Amino acid sequence: MCGIFGIQDNDEALHMVFLGLYGLQHRGEESAGIAAFGPNGFCVRKGTGLVEKVLREQKIKELSGHAVIGHVRYSTTGSSNPVNVQPFSVNHKGTFIAVAHNGNLTNTRKLCDYLEESGSIFQTSMDSEVLVHLLVKSPKRKLSNKFKDALSRVQGAYSALFLIDDILVGARDPYGVRPLSLGKIGSSYILSSETCAFDMIGAKFIRDIEPGEIIFIHKDGTIESDYLESEKKAHCVFEQIYFSRPDSRVFGDSIYAQRKNLGKMLAKEFPLEADMVLPVPDSGSYAALGYAEGSGIPFEMGIVRNHYIGRTFISPFQSLRELRVKIKLNPIKDVIKGKKIIVIEDSIVRGTTSKNRIESLRKAGAKEIYMLVSCPPIVWPCFYGIDFPTKDELIASTKSVKKIKDFIGVDFLGYLSLNGMKKALSDNGRFCDACFSGEYPIPVSLKTSKYMMEKQKTKFLE
Amino acid sequence: MCGIFGIQDNDEALHMVFLGLYGLQHRGEESAGIAAFGPNGFCVRKGTGLVEKVLREQKIKELSGHAVIGHVRYSTTGSSNPVNVQPFSVNHKGTFIAVAHNGNLTNTRKLCDYLEESGSIFQTSMDSEVLVHLLVKSPKRKLSNKFKDALSRVQGAYSALFLIDDILVGARDPYGVRPLSLGKIGSSYILSSETCAFDMIGAKFIRDIEPGEIIFIHKDGTIESDYLESEKKAHCVFEQIYFSRPDSRVFGDSIYAQRKNLGKMLAKEFPLEADMVLPVPDSGSYAALGYAEGSGIPFEMGIVRNHYIGRTFISPFQSLRELRVKIKLNPIKDVIKGKKIIVIEDSIVRGTTSKNRIESLRKAGAKEIYMLVSCPPIVWPCFYGIDFPTKDELIASTKSVKKIKDFIGVDFLGYLSLNGMKKALSDNGRFCDACFSGEYPIPVSLKTSKYMMEKQKTKFLE
Amino acid sequence: MCGIFGIQDNDEALHMVFLGLYGLQHRGEESAGIAAFGPNGFCVRKGTGLVEKVLREQKIKELSGHAVIGHVRYSTTGSSNPVNVQPFSVNHKGTFIAVAHNGNLTNTRKLCDYLEESGSIFQTSMDSEVLVHLLVKSPKRKLSNKFKDALSRVQGAYSALFLIDDILVGARDPYGVRPLSLGKIGSSYILSSETCAFDMIGAKFIRDIEPGEIIFIHKDGTIESDYLESEKKAHCVFEQIYFSRPDSRVFGDSIYAQRKNLGKMLAKEFPLEADMVLPVPDSGSYAALGYAEGSGIPFEMGIVRNHYIGRTFISPFQSLRELRVKIKLNPIKDVIKGKKIIVIEDSIVRGTTSKNRIESLRKAGAKEIYMLVSCPPIVWPCFYGIDFPTKDELIASTKSVKKIKDFIGVDFLGYLSLNGMKKALSDNGRFCDACFSGEYPIPVSLKTSKYMMEKQKTKFLE
Amino acid sequence: MCGIFGIQDNDEALHMVFLGLYGLQHRGEESAGIAAFGPNGFCVRKGTGLVEKVLREQKIKELSGHAVIGHVRYSTTGSSNPVNVQPFSVNHKGTFIAVAHNGNLTNTRKLCDYLEESGSIFQTSMDSEVLVHLLVKSPKRKLSNKFKDALSRVQGAYSALFLIDDILVGARDPYGVRPLSLGKIGSSYILSSETCAFDMIGAKFIRDIEPGEIIFIHKDGTIESDYLESEKKAHCVFEQIYFSRPDSRVFGDSIYAQRKNLGKMLAKEFPLEADMVLPVPDSGSYAALGYAEGSGIPFEMGIVRNHYIGRTFISPFQSLRELRVKIKLNPIKDVIKGKKIIVIEDSIVRGTTSKNRIESLRKAGAKEIYMLVSCPPIVWPCFYGIDFPTKDELIASTKSVKKIKDFIGVDFLGYLSLNGMKKALSDNGRFCDACFSGEYPIPVSLKTSKYMMEKQKTKFLE
Repeated sequence: MCGIFGIQDNDEALHMVFLGLYGLQHRGEESAGIAAFGPNGFCVRKGTGLVEKVLREQKIKELSGHAVIGHVRYSTTGSSNPVNVQPFSVNHKGTFIAVAHNGNLTNTRKLCDYLEESGSIFQTSMDSEVLVHLLVKSPKRKLSNKFKDALSRVQGAYSALFLIDDILVGARDPYGVRPLSLGKIGSSYILSSETCAFDMIGAKFIRDIEPGEIIFIHKDGTIESDYLESEKKAHCVFEQIYFSRPDSRVFGDSIYAQRKNLGKMLAKEFPLEADMVLPVPDSGSYAALGYAEGSGIPFEMGIVRNHYIGRTFISPFQSLRELRVKIKLNPIKDVIKGKKIIVIEDSIVRGTTSKNRIESLRKAGAKEIYMLVSCPPIVWPCFYGIDFPTKDELIASTKSVKKIKDFIGVDFLGYLSLNGMKKALSDNGRFCDACFSGEYPIPVSLKTSKYMMEKQKTKFLE
Repeated sequence: MCGIFGIQDNDEALHMVFLGLYGLQHRGEESAGIAAFGPNGFCVRKGTGLVEKVLREQKIKELSGHAVIGHVRYSTTGSSNPVNVQPFSVNHKGTFIAVAHNGNLTNTRKLCDYLEESGSIFQTSMDSEVLVHLLVKSPKRKLSNKFKDALSRVQGAYSALFLIDDILVGARDPYGVRPLSLGKIGSSYILSSETCAFDMIGAKFIRDIEPGEIIFIHKDGTIESDYLESEKKAHCVFEQIYFSRPDSRVFGDSIYAQRKNLGKMLAKEFPLEADMVLPVPDSGSYAALGYAEGSGIPFEMGIVRNHYIGRTFISPFQSLRELRVKIKLNPIKDVIKGKKIIVIEDSIVRGTTSKNRIESLRKAGAKEIYMLVSCPPIVWPCFYGIDFPTKDELIASTKSVKKIKDFIGVDFLGYLSLNGMKKALSDNGRFCDACFSGEYPIPVSLKTSKYMMEKQKTKFLE
Repeated sequence: MCGIFGIQDNDEALHMVFLGLYGLQHRGEESAGIAAFGPNGFCVRKGTGLVEKVLREQKIKELSGHAVIGHVRYSTTGSSNPVNVQPFSVNHKGTFIAVAHNGNLTNTRKLCDYLEESGSIFQTSMDSEVLVHLLVKSPKRKLSNKFKDALSRVQGAYSALFLIDDILVGARDPYGVRPLSLGKIGSSYILSSETCAFDMIGAKFIRDIEPGEIIFIHKDGTIESDYLESEKKAHCVFEQIYFSRPDSRVFGDSIYAQRKNLGKMLAKEFPLEADMVLPVPDSGSYAALGYAEGSGIPFEMGIVRNHYIGRTFISPFQSLRELRVKIKLNPIKDVIKGKKIIVIEDSIVRGTTSKNRIESLRKAGAKEIYMLVSCPPIVWPCFYGIDFPTKDELIASTKSVKKIKDFIGVDFLGYLSLNGMKKALSDNGRFCDACFSGEYPIPVSLKTSKYMMEKQKTKFLE
Repeated sequence: MCGIFGIQDNDEALHMVFLGLYGLQHRGEESAGIAAFGPNGFCVRKGTGLVEKVLREQKIKELSGHAVIGHVRYSTTGSSNPVNVQPFSVNHKGTFIAVAHNGNLTNTRKLCDYLEESGSIFQTSMDSEVLVHLLVKSPKRKLSNKFKDALSRVQGAYSALFLIDDILVGARDPYGVRPLSLGKIGSSYILSSETCAFDMIGAKFIRDIEPGEIIFIHKDGTIESDYLESEKKAHCVFEQIYFSRPDSRVFGDSIYAQRKNLGKMLAKEFPLEADMVLPVPDSGSYAALGYAEGSGIPFEMGIVRNHYIGRTFISPFQSLRELRVKIKLNPIKDVIKGKKIIVIEDSIVRGTTSKNRIESLRKAGAKEIYMLVSCPPIVWPCFYGIDFPTKDELIASTKSVKKIKDFIGVDFLGYLSLNGMKKALSDNGRFCDACFSGEYPIPVSLKTSKYMMEKQKTKFLE
């Protein structure tokens, strides 16, 4: 997962992107970067770490530019290579080209083979480098045609921002898997992964970029759009369940309301009796609130989150993982002791985190613990950009609900049903739920390899 | 304010204190430090910044010691001098003496004059240095008598930990202003400002140290106590309202329960009608929950806290303060728009933070905003260790409730009454409420100067 | 200028390159980097700053590889962009390709145009990226033919190291402008810009790589060479005069001996009378020693160099430049006062540094100061990799010797004659002396632009 | 060893001290610090590391003060405790007192016992803390009498600077062991360990502070001196041989000239035959020059010093020590091979460094190596501030010259005779040569312990 944010024609464009990326930080903590274009030329600043650290150290304040794009990147195992930090940029025939990309292409391998055959070289393992190669290779003369030409070769999920000198371009794949919204502050247009980032800078939300839309935002304030053919929508349902911020509107819905709805639906599917509903801060809070409202069972904030345990937490002592759970979320004994508790989780991936939490609730004296999950079991990997572990590591892929219950150590475990989820979210066929159902809307090659690094040696050396 | 944590006779004493200080980090973000004693001698490591930064950089992992005390310190204007970082330590006649102190002495000036007259010199402006001087000057031969002798000269609020070589000593002033609790893990005794720190390491709570108690914990596991005369209790009521963590028991009470009680009492005193109760994360959440429970008005978590805005937030751009409010807490428009809202604050000090929050709620479209405060107006400064600003800066000290309401910009402002607060907290005369009532239980010299630095030149140079 | 160092088939290859780069640090203080290949794959680590800082921070110790190349880079105004740090590397069709390059190509612009036309994109402004593109574009099948094909398109000065997976390749341009030597330790071959780096690791010097030679060093210890046609030698004479370390053999000569010879020739051309010969530490010391030996005038080390003023010197106060001269080299009054002094400089570029030094010698009480320079006036820019300033900034390009004398403030100024220099260095037509004579051995396009960044926009955007 | 520098009544006092400490950096690389007094009060900034690092990080530029003292401290094993960084400072009865001290007291233990008995506590193990205690304990009313009173209790070597609010005080022990000189720039007086620091700021040398002199420099430009009784001079001869910078005048002599004289005397005592005299950069250069001048044997700078190997050198690989020698000083094979060489060392302490150097000269092909040392064998420890190792580690204390020769691996080893040294330096009984002769001019208690830390437990705990 990643977050992208861009702005056109603003005197404080760099400041705006800095703030906007803060609002998207939850979409990626591993690296951050910006690319800017202005009268003094272009510049790119990026690095590994949080927005605050990277952009402060990179002294972006000293830069200038009125058209700027920014990116935050999620940590994916094995790919934390500094060269893979976005935006990716080149200077081609005197034109500055920069890309910030959220999503995952599914035919990267094939595209790379094709491009290398004609002499292209790759410095990174990023989809965004592939996008630039395709753009540059296009024989079309008009910029919009170059984009249509390049993107028509691409398969997979992408919401991407481009700077072509001072033209800001946004593109969203024909299925609309990842979100991308258009906002405005004063006369300046903004593109952002989530609408919460508009709030950070006091901008207003205009509309979502449509699936297959390629939008060109010019310095003079004019915008024009071109479209790839789009047959069917396949918005990532996990954005609604877990990934997006509760203060965003994503795919036209209030995330806060959607999550409360999931909780209310859980209350219908699992009308349990208990002393309290206990949210797991912060992600499980909204479904828990919905469940409490739906069930009438008291809502108690009985787990305290320690805000000093951030991503940068590094213990000088061993036993890091165990310790993080222990210190990060502390159950309040006075609240929990001797009580029947309903714990609401947004989702279960590996199951180990839930297991640890339940353990500490037991130690705090809970009498009975029922866990409800506001989505169905995650059984299938995601090829469109959510960094789930491999199938073997997805607990629901290898264990029955009964066995997961035993593993986690709860007295009852209930997952929201697929239909319940669809109903709660007003699905109407617009969501991709492949991780639950295995029905992949976009073709996925079995050989799909995320990183060219791992590619078999083919033809260069005899 | 500060937090203190100490442990005796534990193989992992340093690790324990590291974790314990994490649990007390909310009591002081400015500096951190530890002092340790073991077979390889003693050592002190300290520095400015959060526990994680300081103790990692100081490489405490490489140290050893079975008796260790630690300290975190709150930021107080003008005193962020590196030399004032605790623990304070000396080597006196071959004995290692270290002190970590929470509270504020009220006769420091007088004690310093007395000590300087007899040739003592002061390197810091810390009360803890004064405590060591008094201890060392005592003509008594027995350690417990030295302590009684020294502490009987001291006036004010203190909960303090000492290492005298490998003897761990805890002392609490006769009024019991600041908290100090005894815990145990395995056969090792622990002293901590708050019980939540016991949870961090899996220790169990034994009892509170009593007002006026001086407890000596020896390496062999024996403990003995001596007592200063204690006439009357004066526990800091602000620990209950704001300062302590909700998962601690402080002065015998569950902080979580106390704060919910304050909210319920607010519901009795101010039975308003509204669409929702809105907590201000995280400190106002518990009183808000109590108010919602008491009033039956729905509880909505309509303000999202950005966890990436920490203490270390430094913007490369200007307009820092305004920006922090904006980015740190974002109201959810979809929840708030067109609604009548009750906002619960735990307390109002200067009023500017509340004002900014209300402004952003207005921008998010709130129709009417009622603010309720879970304590009475803060009118008087604290001389016992809470770092309130000067009287002039306390908004309730210079403005009527009506004017505060206008300043903050709410449609209604209600403070919990003093009696209501006492009743909700089961006061029974055990709390110091001087900041609300002006009734100071411990004598305060009008000339009390917190920092010797500011002392008038007296006698050294003619 | 840059320094390059590579080693094949050594268990401590990374350690060796680390040490080797220390020995080449004088060739480039701006950035450092390494690329390594081994059983665990490849890796690249690089950054701005000195070898010690970069490679320590990059934690090269944790890496592995038996074939490693390294690079240090000189600071050239306007190009201190982190993306331009070498080695440059790509993964092409599953083969790792890395390049470290010393020199400057003179037809970069033309090559880029050709490559971009066929769809190549450039992320950096480095010659080394161009070299990789050419290599990859070559239709030849054999690796040696690919190299010959690629390098035959290239004009200019280059000594370059390549890793093609685990094959170490060294190449030197047909004129042999920049040095490159072959060494050996145990059974491992080494390639280095200078022989002094062999000493750092206890390796022995085998021979220089010949102009136009392309040497392939395989993991099994076999080496083979291929050759580009080479008509005439044009070794950079400035390597002899200033750039190389005195403990290196470069182009077959002992640098120490060559510089002493220059000093002796100065003694012949300028038989002055004076109280002492004063070297300017450290670069002018060897010519000064030669002059003293040739003239019989006492050699006095009357200027003390402060070793604490390094490249990283950053004054918290202003007036940086002036201060550096003042603090860095302090004349000893007791030695200089009232004396007639001959100061030996290796070369004069802008003249400002010499001017400052003379000023401080005057202040120290020197009676008369004669300055002798161990090379002719530098009048022409270098297009082959020495980072002279532009023609306008070269003092000898705009001022007569008489005016330079006045500017610097000496009582006499003498430059070694071009013929004297050639004779002293046993030239025999093998050196490039274009900076003195303007006779450029390799064609230079007048439009030569070092950085593609500055290229005119051509064809990408209509 | 340490370096001290202070200035009175200067608008750029902080800048001056910053530059001055650069000039004294060779006297101490472990820590640096400054104390300043001005209209805005006082401040102290200090830390471990070089002047540049410490004072830059401490942001001294933002401070102000017209009277400033500074200190650099030598690394002494076991004492690299951050609390021991100077200047030491206190605020006593409203008066700021700061001390920077060079030297070593010999009755510290006794003074501490006396002071602790009367209730003083010590935070550091520094002599300077003891000096402040004595000053503050003095019952005298006049400042000069307080100083005389305090210093009359002190035994040992000290050159110290004090700030008493805005009065700058300098004091030198009655034997004048350590240097201290008075300088002036404009109307501002300066005190510095060495005169070279005057050059750094363009100040002029006035005179040495006399043994036993206490000089008071007031803000209004007046100076007055008081004197302790001084029977006999005992200047540290090692300042002349090794410690001071060659561009300083110390004890009235040009260090450059003194060292050349030592070399000339060596030429008289050891009229060897050889191909060249080889200085060991940089400390041995001056004696080598003297030997070459005296003997007529050519002087060759055949060992190249790598200026990138500084104090901060940290190898990511092991074998640090060995590597440092190897990389730091590289012999030039072309100069040395097959030659008879005279190597001049200023002194031999442990012998290991010399041994390593000789080894690398052998590897470079030297035929015969004669080592001459420009002082007698160091047999006795120093109690006055030179950080020699213990007697057991001084090679000349346990081995005969013959055995040292074998250990180091030279063909001949000659030490300058004690008389020769005295004559060369124009001793006339003014130097302390205890390290050579064992004749200690100032009484030394056998139990002298440098650090109170190690003191036996005495009386505090029963």
